[in-house]
Order: sequence, then C-alpha cells, then structure tokens
Amino acid sequence: MRNLDQHTITQEAIDRLADTPDPRVREVLTSLIRHLHDFARDVNLTEDEWARGIAFLTATGQKCDDKRQEFILLSDVLGLSMLTVAMNNAKPPECTEATVFGPFFVDGAPHYENGDDVANGASGEPCEVIGSIRALDGRPVAGARIDVWQADAQGLYDVQRDDLDTAQGRGVLHADDAGMYHFHTVLAEAYPIPTDGPVGELLAATARHPWRPAHLHFRIEAPGYETLVTHVFREDDQWLDSDAVFGVRQSLIAPWVRREDGSYALHYDFVLNPVAKG
Amino acid sequence: MRNLDQHTITQEAIDRLADTPDPRVREVLTSLIRHLHDFARDVNLTEDEWARGIAFLTATGQKCDDKRQEFILLSDVLGLSMLTVAMNNAKPPECTEATVFGPFFVDGAPHYENGDDVANGASGEPCEVIGSIRALDGRPVAGARIDVWQADAQGLYDVQRDDLDTAQGRGVLHADDAGMYHFHTVLAEAYPIPTDGPVGELLAATARHPWRPAHLHFRIEAPGYETLVTHVFREDDQWLDSDAVFGVRQSLIAPWVRREDGSYALHYDFVLNPVAKG
Repeated sequence: MRNLDQHTITQEAIDRLADTPDPRVREVLTSLIRHLHDFARDVNLTEDEWARGIAFLTATGQKCDDKRQEFILLSDVLGLSMLTVAMNNAKPPECTEATVFGPFFVDGAPHYENGDDVANGASGEPCEVIGSIRALDGRPVAGARIDVWQADAQGLYDVQRDDLDTAQGRGVLHADDAGMYHFHTVLAEAYPIPTDGPVGELLAATARHPWRPAHLHFRIEAPGYETLVTHVFREDDQWLDSDAVFGVRQSLIAPWVRREDGSYALHYDFVLNPVAKG
Repeated sequence: MRNLDQHTITQEAIDRLADTPDPRVREVLTSLIRHLHDFARDVNLTEDEWARGIAFLTATGQKCDDKRQEFILLSDVLGLSMLTVAMNNAKPPECTEATVFGPFFVDGAPHYENGDDVANGASGEPCEVIGSIRALDGRPVAGARIDVWQADAQGLYDVQRDDLDTAQGRGVLHADDAGMYHFHTVLAEAYPIPTDGPVGELLAATARHPWRPAHLHFRIEAPGYETLVTHVFREDDQWLDSDAVFGVRQSLIAPWVRREDGSYALHYDFVLNPVAKG
C-alpha cells in the first residue's frame, strides 16, 4: 500500500501481522501497534521528540550489562512493573502479596545453611531474620527454596560495586522440615535507585525523587506453589508512601526490632498460593 | 500511596509527574504512561511476556553502535517512523513528499562536486542522477546541501560492511547556481533490511518479509526551507506495495532509464517547502 498517512498507517501495520503463526503474538503486537500509534497521534509527536525517544531507548539498552538492567528500572519507574505484578498475582488475601522483581536479582547466588550470615561482609547493622514458609492451611512448605537479596548500609547492592567480585547480602536458603528459615544479614536501609543512567535523567526531568523505602527482597519457590517474588518493607520508613517504583503493600510492612545489644531482628512469615489445578 | 492495583496505579504514576518543569515533557510522558498501561491491561500482559519484552528491548539497544541503529529499524517496521513523518510534513501538494529517515544515515559523509561519482567503488550498474532543487514558485534553490546515500548491488550500505572503512554510495553535494545537482553512482536495487538482530526476530515471528523496494535516499537542506528527508523509489519494483517500513509514496516513484550503453539514468526534481513565517 502506497501513500499511507497518519490516519491509515495503523491499520496497514496491523494488517501486516496477518500471517503471524502464534495467535497470542499477533494479539499482543496488534495492541502494541495500536497504542504506540495512538500515543504518537495524541501528543502530535514531533520528529525531534521521536529522535530523542530513539536516543533514550538506545542509551537505556546500552546501560544494561550482566549486572545492570536499566530497562527493568525504566519499567519500574513508569509503573509498568507493578501493574504487571498486580495483574498476574490475584490470590486469596491470606497469601503473601507479590511486588516488583527489581533490576538487582542475580542468578547463581551462593547457597547458605539456615543460621548462616548472608551479609558476607556487607556493611550495615547486624540483623537476624527468621520466619516460616507455609501453605494456606498452615502446613509447612518444607524445603522451599528462598532467594534473598538486599542493599548494604550505603544503599548499594553487591552488583553495583565495581570493587567487589563476591556476593554480599545475597544468597539462597531452603526452609527446614518445619518450614522455617533463618539467616543473619545487615539492616535494610532506604536507598535511591541508580540515577547515573537514562532512568536517572528521566527522574530529573520530571523532578521525581529516586528513593525506595528500606526493604529485603525474597523469591520463594516450591513445587505445587506459585513462585512468590516480593519484599518485606521496613516499618516507619519515610519513603513508604512515595516509593520510586510503586511497590509498597501494607501487608508487606514489618518492624525490624532493635535488641538490647544494638542488633536488629525481623520476623516474617510467608504464605504461598497453590498452583491452580488444571 | 500503598497497595496500588492494576486499576489505581496508572493515575498514581501520572500524578508523580506533577512537578515536571517542562509542560511538554509532562504532556508526552502522561500520554506515554496512559497508553503503555492500557496496552498491558488490554492484553493481560503476563510476567513472562513482560520479561520477554524487557529482553527484546535490551537486545535492541545493545545491537546499536555507531553504524547500526536497531531502534530506528524497530520504529520503522512498526510503522511509527512513517506515522511521525506523516504527522510532521503537511505541505502543499506541489512540494516533494517526505518519507522515513531509516537507520543508515551517517554524519560526516565525504563532499563531492557535481558530476563526481559518489559510488566510490560500490558494486552495481553505473548510473547517473540529475535534477533540480526548486522553490514552490519554480525559482532555483542555489547552494542547497544534498546528502545522498544508498545500498550497493548486494543490498548493503557501506556501514553494514565490516570489510570497508571508507564511504561508498554516500556523499554530500550542493546544488549549483541554477539549482541543479548531478552525480554518478550505482543502480539502486531492492534489499532486505538487516535480519540478524531483534528486528529480524520480530519479522520472523510475524512471518513478515524484510524487503524494501529499490530507492535512493536524499536529505536536502537550505536556509529558509524545511529540511526534506526522502527517497526516490524505482519504478516497477516488486516490493512497492509491501515496503517493510511503509515508506512508499506514489509521487516519489520514478523511472531509472536504461541507456544504450547499459548504464542507467535517473532524473528527479525536488521542490522544497518554505519555513513557515512566524
């Protein structure tokens, strides 16, 4: 088709998907093209703005490496990540809620035994974390695999530190036969998401702060249950109501209790949702 | 705000733009967030699809370098580039129409005199190109700067060839006092857009062909006139009605005439639009 204009090109681009073998791919791309074009028309996107958008997306991709995921960060600050989590994690209210995955998960973290110190040298106040992994009926989920990761006292994850080539504040544990888990680490602190890349430029251009309330990441996997990706947030943090990535759930907020010896303790129990039978 | 769900997060993400200093930035990002979220909701985007989208965008950014612009290519095959061109180039019908910029323009191409051979060794049938640059009233636009670029007989631009470190089929000329331009080059041939990156995967997943009809790129700049970015397309090409990037305009199709000695000739006149007085 020749002479496509701003009114006819959208249908033509969608028609070009007619031979797509996978109907879901066709459905997703059809909606993507429709919304992408509607966006451009709604704002009367200029050619200069288009070029700036291309440059921004290119820089975002080029900021990524095996330890940095700037596109996840972009999705996070635009609210797309939390939207996707919310759409895909409907479950009974007794189950632990999910929240954003974030850009700092790393596959292949070191394995620890219950009672070990996953801080492995990370800076921060000493902290003990303990709790249970249970099913909806209260039964323990023995052997559940638990990935835990967090920032240090400077607000940095291990993968953000060029001077470090070992995992700190990151590890894999397994629930014991009673469904209990237990580890030592450092106190979670509020921190700004990385602002030295395109996402930082976007936050600056929109006068948005980069802070996330203090939290500890968990990913919990067990056969027969939906994988739970979540955080536990620290009570009374000043950023709980303006998390830069929109991830806070009231049910995920818990107290880190200060003990007499100056160390901290967190007790948090998780409830997994069974995989739907089908 | 805590406990955002798929229905409340969009307004919250938009509200977070409230302090954006530049009203246009706020307008564009507000629309972007609205359409991005509507897209995710419309298709019930799964977490796995979200992760695949992140991986696709990351790979697209990482495919880019100083000679390759995979995000422009993505914009091109989704119809966004031509949509943007169409929205921004309304002008009198006597003016030469614009079309997509494409990913293969390079700044700093070599300068040539009228009559020179810009092929500079590119493979292909010899071809002579001649024409005029005029204003709406027919007056010549003396001194207009003309960037021209094209693929060789193998369908490759110079920047796609690892074995090449000089410009071929690419150059800058200037219209003479009569507004005429004139150069030698090689015959334009149809070619597939690069399919060795994420955009190639997208075309394969949608069973779309990657072909573009044969064309010669022009960018023409002169004080007092809108910059014209366009192609001239070769008459009778089999891909004129299914250009992979939606760029064909009937008015931009012209005959490359075969001469008795086997060489080709193209005559094409351009008419520039004056910059709006304001």
